[in-house]
Amino acid sequence: MSTVVLPPGTRPEAPPAAPDRIRIPRDAEDDYGPEILDRRRAFVEDFTGVRLGHVRAMSYEPRLARGNCEHLIGTAQVPLGIAGPLRIEGEHARGDYLIPLATSEGTLVASYNRGMKALNDAGGARCTVVEDAMQRAPVFVLGDARRARALAAWVRRHEDGIRAVAQSTSRFARLLYVDPYLSNHFVFLRFNFETGDAAGQNMVTRATAAACAWILKSFPGIRRFHLESNFASDKKTSRVNLLRTRGKRVTAEATVPRAVLERRLRARPESLLDHYQAAGIGAFMAGTNNNGLHAANALAALFIATGQDVANVAESSAAIVFAEGTDDGGLFLSVTLPSLIVATHGGGTGLPCQRECLEILGCHGPGRVRALAEIVAGVVLAGELSLAAAIAADEWVEAHERLGRNR
Amino acid sequence: MSTVVLPPGTRPEAPPAAPDRIRIPRDAEDDYGPEILDRRRAFVEDFTGVRLGHVRAMSYEPRLARGNCEHLIGTAQVPLGIAGPLRIEGEHARGDYLIPLATSEGTLVASYNRGMKALNDAGGARCTVVEDAMQRAPVFVLGDARRARALAAWVRRHEDGIRAVAQSTSRFARLLYVDPYLSNHFVFLRFNFETGDAAGQNMVTRATAAACAWILKSFPGIRRFHLESNFASDKKTSRVNLLRTRGKRVTAEATVPRAVLERRLRARPESLLDHYQAAGIGAFMAGTNNNGLHAANALAALFIATGQDVANVAESSAAIVFAEGTDDGGLFLSVTLPSLIVATHGGGTGLPCQRECLEILGCHGPGRVRALAEIVAGVVLAGELSLAAAIAADEWVEAHERLGRNR
Amino acid sequence: MSTVVLPPGTRPEAPPAAPDRIRIPRDAEDDYGPEILDRRRAFVEDFTGVRLGHVRAMSYEPRLARGNCEHLIGTAQVPLGIAGPLRIEGEHARGDYLIPLATSEGTLVASYNRGMKALNDAGGARCTVVEDAMQRAPVFVLGDARRARALAAWVRRHEDGIRAVAQSTSRFARLLYVDPYLSNHFVFLRFNFETGDAAGQNMVTRATAAACAWILKSFPGIRRFHLESNFASDKKTSRVNLLRTRGKRVTAEATVPRAVLERRLRARPESLLDHYQAAGIGAFMAGTNNNGLHAANALAALFIATGQDVANVAESSAAIVFAEGTDDGGLFLSVTLPSLIVATHGGGTGLPCQRECLEILGCHGPGRVRALAEIVAGVVLAGELSLAAAIAADEWVEAHERLGRNR
Amino acid sequence: MSTVVLPPGTRPEAPPAAPDRIRIPRDAEDDYGPEILDRRRAFVEDFTGVRLGHVRAMSYEPRLARGNCEHLIGTAQVPLGIAGPLRIEGEHARGDYLIPLATSEGTLVASYNRGMKALNDAGGARCTVVEDAMQRAPVFVLGDARRARALAAWVRRHEDGIRAVAQSTSRFARLLYVDPYLSNHFVFLRFNFETGDAAGQNMVTRATAAACAWILKSFPGIRRFHLESNFASDKKTSRVNLLRTRGKRVTAEATVPRAVLERRLRARPESLLDHYQAAGIGAFMAGTNNNGLHAANALAALFIATGQDVANVAESSAAIVFAEGTDDGGLFLSVTLPSLIVATHGGGTGLPCQRECLEILGCHGPGRVRALAEIVAGVVLAGELSLAAAIAADEWVEAHERLGRNR
Repeated sequence: MSTVVLPPGTRPEAPPAAPDRIRIPRDAEDDYGPEILDRRRAFVEDFTGVRLGHVRAMSYEPRLARGNCEHLIGTAQVPLGIAGPLRIEGEHARGDYLIPLATSEGTLVASYNRGMKALNDAGGARCTVVEDAMQRAPVFVLGDARRARALAAWVRRHEDGIRAVAQSTSRFARLLYVDPYLSNHFVFLRFNFETGDAAGQNMVTRATAAACAWILKSFPGIRRFHLESNFASDKKTSRVNLLRTRGKRVTAEATVPRAVLERRLRARPESLLDHYQAAGIGAFMAGTNNNGLHAANALAALFIATGQDVANVAESSAAIVFAEGTDDGGLFLSVTLPSLIVATHGGGTGLPCQRECLEILGCHGPGRVRALAEIVAGVVLAGELSLAAAIAADEWVEAHERLGRNR
Repeated sequence: MSTVVLPPGTRPEAPPAAPDRIRIPRDAEDDYGPEILDRRRAFVEDFTGVRLGHVRAMSYEPRLARGNCEHLIGTAQVPLGIAGPLRIEGEHARGDYLIPLATSEGTLVASYNRGMKALNDAGGARCTVVEDAMQRAPVFVLGDARRARALAAWVRRHEDGIRAVAQSTSRFARLLYVDPYLSNHFVFLRFNFETGDAAGQNMVTRATAAACAWILKSFPGIRRFHLESNFASDKKTSRVNLLRTRGKRVTAEATVPRAVLERRLRARPESLLDHYQAAGIGAFMAGTNNNGLHAANALAALFIATGQDVANVAESSAAIVFAEGTDDGGLFLSVTLPSLIVATHGGGTGLPCQRECLEILGCHGPGRVRALAEIVAGVVLAGELSLAAAIAADEWVEAHERLGRNR
Repeated sequence: MSTVVLPPGTRPEAPPAAPDRIRIPRDAEDDYGPEILDRRRAFVEDFTGVRLGHVRAMSYEPRLARGNCEHLIGTAQVPLGIAGPLRIEGEHARGDYLIPLATSEGTLVASYNRGMKALNDAGGARCTVVEDAMQRAPVFVLGDARRARALAAWVRRHEDGIRAVAQSTSRFARLLYVDPYLSNHFVFLRFNFETGDAAGQNMVTRATAAACAWILKSFPGIRRFHLESNFASDKKTSRVNLLRTRGKRVTAEATVPRAVLERRLRARPESLLDHYQAAGIGAFMAGTNNNGLHAANALAALFIATGQDVANVAESSAAIVFAEGTDDGGLFLSVTLPSLIVATHGGGTGLPCQRECLEILGCHGPGRVRALAEIVAGVVLAGELSLAAAIAADEWVEAHERLGRNR
Repeated sequence: MSTVVLPPGTRPEAPPAAPDRIRIPRDAEDDYGPEILDRRRAFVEDFTGVRLGHVRAMSYEPRLARGNCEHLIGTAQVPLGIAGPLRIEGEHARGDYLIPLATSEGTLVASYNRGMKALNDAGGARCTVVEDAMQRAPVFVLGDARRARALAAWVRRHEDGIRAVAQSTSRFARLLYVDPYLSNHFVFLRFNFETGDAAGQNMVTRATAAACAWILKSFPGIRRFHLESNFASDKKTSRVNLLRTRGKRVTAEATVPRAVLERRLRARPESLLDHYQAAGIGAFMAGTNNNGLHAANALAALFIATGQDVANVAESSAAIVFAEGTDDGGLFLSVTLPSLIVATHGGGTGLPCQRECLEILGCHGPGRVRALAEIVAGVVLAGELSLAAAIAADEWVEAHERLGRNR
């Protein structure tokens, strides 16, 4: 690879390479066959001087990755551990679940496992999906604020027509409602859909595009239009998602007896509550999207394992944690994920490894997406409990020393 | 797996399973040997009734995952594609780079690849790491605000002593400065470290713990103390990280001639700028942590490929995008990632696949972490350009139709 | 007054005074008569040793302040200047308005006056109220998330019943819609009302209280309840208000020809646009509630003059500014106030001075509140234009030197 | 006044008035003399058809308002009530203070008075100024991110030189430190000053302008520059001010025995704490700048009374409230105002009424500004306690019925 390392500040001549003529080999007929994969790997080896070994490994037919990854050369193997079982008391998931976690972060599986045992002793995690909606949010640029207001009112009056057009693009997309936001001469329309078992970003993009084409044709005077405006906020965390849901809004909650906390986690409820209070002020001041601890750890590990769009960790990692003492000296702990994006169909969920992990969770196939959301929330709760107890018990540093790769 | 699916609202009896007696098999001597792995896999198969096939596959000795994943049963293979080459004009990375992206999201690799070609035609991405600091942020609870102010002042006066204690815990951690934030009777101390080639979260946790032990011993009247307060904000996006850096603050920028935009991306600068303006209002209103489009896509794919802590997509996905027209009708585009967490040492970077991907980038081994940060920023810039052009050219829906898994 | 000034750090004995026995004189029969006012003034003079002179002055019968201020001793006279006329092209306000501004900040009136002249040359400010709603937002604490979801669904189904109860408390309050937000086991209900010409905070508090009493009686299992939850966000700025309106959402916009900018304000559109872009990045990073400049200046001066609740400057000062160049080299400038709270009836609007100022604006009496909102937005726009031009023209410091109280 | 009220949607011809030829009368020699005031009042009466009565009233020589208000026509009299005494246990203010509150909002004075009595019974409000800094925040536009980083480093190295230039502009401004924030090719410099007894916005503007002129002369390659960037965030609330102080950061705290709460406020600590918890979740979700209740009420009333810049209610109203139960069943309550802007010199503080109010507080004249900040914080605390208790005791609606102007 033609990298030249320089001390900061030194500026060499522009390198002579002409990347335009260097093209990654492709096969227009079958870009996932053994020949083209080998040509691509050879190209990478030639270009970089690196011998590809482990990344070539695939336990399955590469053509199964068509629709998931262009310019395929192999796979990145992410270590897969198992935690649990975790008892989930959901409406869609009920029972004891082993949890597959794909991660390279030492102590993560052990820490979640520890939290699960404590939750089990407390009767498990009570999990509930309370809202479910996926968005696309176009912006319409009008001539002035008055015309913008008129479009918003028109959209409200024509929601049925908009729905018909939007839903004509998919068997699965169901337009729930359109939320208009006005500023200046802009109309931001936040389209909210149910998308079945798919995460649904593509489905709602297509449906919204169709609806917008109809709006553009029907409402005069729209000067400019863009299909996305940051109001959906795809791949970003945002206040609007925290408030109004993106994907699943799901809550996991548990009442943990004092004895369980003390025995399993060597922590007292008072210490956890004291930390919760101080960290809540910290979260408020620091302007976090999460007043809890580390939801993202569970999400990243579960998303990789089960074929979710891992970039959605950005928005899914928002969380609202609530803790209080109970009358008999225990701890009530609850976490709401307001914008959890999960799927049991489409995207990476059908890839061989990911499908097996979904099956381990009993969440492969139709009608299982809310069960998956419940399980994810339960795992997040286990991790909040475990890490909070470790901080409270001052065992946090020690655990990383023992299990992790420190230096 | 003992899941029972119920219609919402119906509450069965609590399931009879007693998860406490069900334990994942472990081997205290060697938890990564073939025998215990097989026992664990058998346990999972027994418990869930799922036959494990592809998740068993590992192209390397499982013991290599020690320190990365407890309760190992195999790996999750994530499809790995290649994009580029992308010309990077950094201070640490200079030249043309092939970019390994691990993803299951169709069109992602193709879209980034398209943006890279356009960037190359524009002379590549000019990339600069402008700040570098990793945090841990304890909170001290004092008797009142006056005593809290006294502690903050004491910490400022004793920064040298604090530094000596903190740095004694690691050869690599270098305490840059301690930032105190005061509220009520709390002192939040945001410790800022340089951590060499490691992401450094564990290193700074240990160093901060040592420093805090010394503070607790030396400053009288601290009533309570917690090693983390949400002011670091580990695994969360936050305003304090956007303002004051977490990990690397790195900028990628390019001036794209009009002809390049039109030929490569079939979009006019005016359309991109118009979208940038409207989406900027959208971002401001919606309260996003990113006024651009989809940095998280590049980050998730690169993080999985190169062994980063994927949960850090939560904070790393913050971005500040700036666009403006140039005098000769082209487009200036720039993105700053204020809290990018990357490593070329430690964590998952030494795992076989991930190490190969780092080698493809010329970023394995000591002294390469800022080069990696530059490359990551360049890839993010390519993706911003590509998607912005697709939205502006109204080709977005069509691309997903052609390449992705829609339904 | 028994103040003792001490160097920081020194702690004297607690002062011997026993404030419990010291009571401000009141007259239960008529607390606004001349005798009790004099007794109170004498009490203040005795207690503090300060001779009250100017604060005694009232040009009107003190009893007129009954319902506005308890323990009255006089008035604070705030200098009142006049700016304009400003041409407003609203739907409710149309014509040229002189603007009364009560302020003690030198240059404020002059700066706004300058902006108004420029706006007039541009044809005036086009102003539009696009939404109108006042809130109260109680929180209900349920047993768990499932029960919380049930309450939210119940509220949606019983909105007509809730409306009937709420509206029975006032001739003027009209319940528009109830917006439920769910988190953990909490249900936050954001009640949205139209309140006629009053700001309406008290009216909606009463109406919401009645509605909640009915909900508490009708829906079983509510464990705790509070009439306010920060979701209204009274006297606070908030994201939810920016997104979903509080009081009036009103936009003022103008297209300012290049010649007007150059002649009136000695600034070029390019300089203003450059500043707008950079300050937009600044606003995004700094996390402001306003990407413009100083809406609060207009609001404070108008609120004092016209008898508004001045504390509402907190939420009313949020703003979304948009600027762009026009094809013929001019400047389009627009500002949206998403949470402007104004009244032409109730509160301080009937006090003698404040009523005169409302009359100057043609906004005293029924049916004028949206006209007032339009005028306020137009004044804010004038101030944005004036200050932006001053910054762009580098005349800002000089203006304060000439007109203000510097030292 | 030439207002025409129209139904929404109807667009008449543009009105024939030519505001350019209509000018408010001014006298270049002496714009505050009796003759020009009368001419202006007559002009307003002519233009609007409104007879000016009460707004003419001034108890003092109008020339005293020179430097405070241009185009003077009189004053807006704001009812002035008195509350307290309130015991303040500050470092600069110690003793029992009567509090002048200028407001037109019924119940405000009574509610604060009630809170003060409860605080007194609890030993008063312990108040502490923990930080003190006033800002101006210019933005420098460089050629690229690398050059921006170089400027930030240069500024750090030349802070002494910058300080010398900045401080040469004022006897009072003292440059504490310059905080650089980097994004894209921008350098935002947040200059932090001590400003003595003045609020200091003008002083720091001038000092920063001088420093910037020197930077612009000394550092090559700055392409554009603006003296303000929203990073100060003058007249706006912002996260950066919440984190890093603007004006005074001041905390007031008290421990209120259960008996005091029950007797004085008819509320139990448990109810207040329950509300605090739920409203904290509300504040976090709603994205408020204040997790408490109504600091803005105290601030607006005190700012008008004492001649502060009332527009600063926008930023000063941010607050961080903390509450917890005490071991003996009482309530600990604390509020931090992180960006309180107050002055005892300059601006409106020297106007006759406002000066008297400052004297009532013992805060007129040099060296008293931190005492004023302490008192303001104490008053805010009294209001938080009073309203929280009213909500908890369900007496809120009733109080407004009795004292306010409801309809």
